[in-house]
Amino acid sequence: MKKIYVFAAILSLIAPSVPELKAQKTAKDSGKEHLPKNIILMIGDGMGLAQMYAAYTASCGTLHMAEFNQIALVKTLSASDYITDSGAGGTAIACGIKTNNGMIGMGPDSIPVKSILKMAEDKGLSTGLVVTCDVTHATPASFVASVKSRKQAEDIAMQFLSTDIDVFIGGGRDAFVNRRDSLNLLDSLAKLNYTVASTIPAMLNVNQGKLAALLYPAHPPKFSEGRGDMLSLSTEKALELLSNNQKGFFMMVEGSQIDWGGHDNNLDYIVNETLDFDKAVGIALDFARKNGETLVIVTADHETGGLSNMEGNFETGQTGGRFTTDDHSGVPVPLYAYGPGSGNFRGLMDNTDIFRLMRQLLNLSR
Amino acid sequence: MKKIYVFAAILSLIAPSVPELKAQKTAKDSGKEHLPKNIILMIGDGMGLAQMYAAYTASCGTLHMAEFNQIALVKTLSASDYITDSGAGGTAIACGIKTNNGMIGMGPDSIPVKSILKMAEDKGLSTGLVVTCDVTHATPASFVASVKSRKQAEDIAMQFLSTDIDVFIGGGRDAFVNRRDSLNLLDSLAKLNYTVASTIPAMLNVNQGKLAALLYPAHPPKFSEGRGDMLSLSTEKALELLSNNQKGFFMMVEGSQIDWGGHDNNLDYIVNETLDFDKAVGIALDFARKNGETLVIVTADHETGGLSNMEGNFETGQTGGRFTTDDHSGVPVPLYAYGPGSGNFRGLMDNTDIFRLMRQLLNLSR
Repeated sequence: MKKIYVFAAILSLIAPSVPELKAQKTAKDSGKEHLPKNIILMIGDGMGLAQMYAAYTASCGTLHMAEFNQIALVKTLSASDYITDSGAGGTAIACGIKTNNGMIGMGPDSIPVKSILKMAEDKGLSTGLVVTCDVTHATPASFVASVKSRKQAEDIAMQFLSTDIDVFIGGGRDAFVNRRDSLNLLDSLAKLNYTVASTIPAMLNVNQGKLAALLYPAHPPKFSEGRGDMLSLSTEKALELLSNNQKGFFMMVEGSQIDWGGHDNNLDYIVNETLDFDKAVGIALDFARKNGETLVIVTADHETGGLSNMEGNFETGQTGGRFTTDDHSGVPVPLYAYGPGSGNFRGLMDNTDIFRLMRQLLNLSR
Repeated sequence: MKKIYVFAAILSLIAPSVPELKAQKTAKDSGKEHLPKNIILMIGDGMGLAQMYAAYTASCGTLHMAEFNQIALVKTLSASDYITDSGAGGTAIACGIKTNNGMIGMGPDSIPVKSILKMAEDKGLSTGLVVTCDVTHATPASFVASVKSRKQAEDIAMQFLSTDIDVFIGGGRDAFVNRRDSLNLLDSLAKLNYTVASTIPAMLNVNQGKLAALLYPAHPPKFSEGRGDMLSLSTEKALELLSNNQKGFFMMVEGSQIDWGGHDNNLDYIVNETLDFDKAVGIALDFARKNGETLVIVTADHETGGLSNMEGNFETGQTGGRFTTDDHSGVPVPLYAYGPGSGNFRGLMDNTDIFRLMRQLLNLSR
């Protein structure tokens, strides 16, 4: 490692100073010049600064999240608590309002609020959700449902039917077919012209139309326990299907289990899930770089675990950390933005500002 | 608090979306258009994201650091360790090289390297240091001295005499007068045309020329134990003296004791010191806003304590946290920038990039 630093130091001694500063003026992601047609919002659940840096260390410094130039810091507090849950956190990002912990898609007054995804649908954009948890779990639920409790998984599943979402991919099939009301919502989805897929190969075979890919009965397994490339493949498939719409698209991708690694105080779990999420970030960045009209936003709903980076080696990828809690913390989370409009995401923001800016940039109305 | 959120939510419903986005194009801190004449570098020693947010909470959301739009994240690792000390961290920022923990102003090979402050002097800019520790302590030492060990306080004091620095203010008089070699370096400073001040009133009386204000025999006391407005008054005085130079100035201001609060795992100490530092940040921002040619950079050399924000109330200012260590952690630290050139500080940076960019922006040579 020392050799690298000495080399870098020598380079910095001989490098001419002027070209880099001039280059800033023609930065590719100047951002403020035009509006995006598409937004890819990527949420690493529970992914604070230390989670990103643990994965950055484990990857020997090759993380896609480290490629972003535009950075903001996001306050995550909810209407009820200094430390949010994923329900109120998801609702703030999806709907632009602060609500009580545990609530989804409505304010503390229980009045439902329309999400950015539904607003995008109303304007004729294509929309999608890709997650590594049940699709009815708190974060994705915030984009399609309005319920008093995040625990109402079957109610949330039902509300997918009244949302004109084009693509949703994740786990949680049981909430659609093994229901207390005995309804088969997969049949209902088929009647609404969705292709319903329950395996990754079946999902990959879908090349047009609407897609409901419920790939697991409940939550997908961990990345390290058989989930494989489900998130990357799903992200690519969703982009393929959604990008056909000339009016644009809105898509949310969640690395859902980074949070669960935090709750388990299991750094390997966190790192594996963050690296898996980062692969999806790389796919989104590639798409955005080629497309030129796509804003990519990567952030978190909150930090989980109160993690600190305590050990690491950028040659071996070894990394170590310590936790202060098996629950969430209140520390702000970073936001990384790329593409047209990215310059608006800056400074110390509120999580509701993410919704507000996305809505303005896509010129959506309630 | 809930009322505020409901009100904010209503505001966001009725607020017109277009003006804000247009306003981005004429942002005052567009940064990339011209170069700064002056740089005020402000280092909160040990001030990570959670330290800032604890102070933000304690101030009920009124922190000056929260006014910055341009944000970067800074990697702090040293040549020898994943977790840096203030010697290697200060040297990276001051001199642009990675060195071993404990070393000051030289690489691991013990070859001295010129600091940004000395380069600024060489080009005829005025220079200054303002700290709330001994002026010979690791962070300020990195800007004036080259020694193998940060413990060489008397050697560091001696090297102040061979640095043409215009203003330095802090504690640590003993290293200048109670020396093993019996020299009186305050007499030497006087011969070099410094006005030597040992009290705040004496410092405030100096209205021109060079100033060596060594206000305490050793470290200044805590803010909460009698230091009072020493940092703010010193920052104002340094700005007054340095800004007379038409060629510009470079100045480093350190909130030195935020780190010590972290080592003590004492959140009150951290918050009080961060709020005191933030007052100096406000003074620097005010100056920069009026002056128009000044770049303000606020960052840290590393995080101390592995702090997480676990409790807080934005109405009462109550705040609570938990620590993972009584030493430093490896988590990246935020950087906040304002003024001409600020747009260059972005993304996940290395601490040596701060030096590199400052040098380019001031057009300094080694």
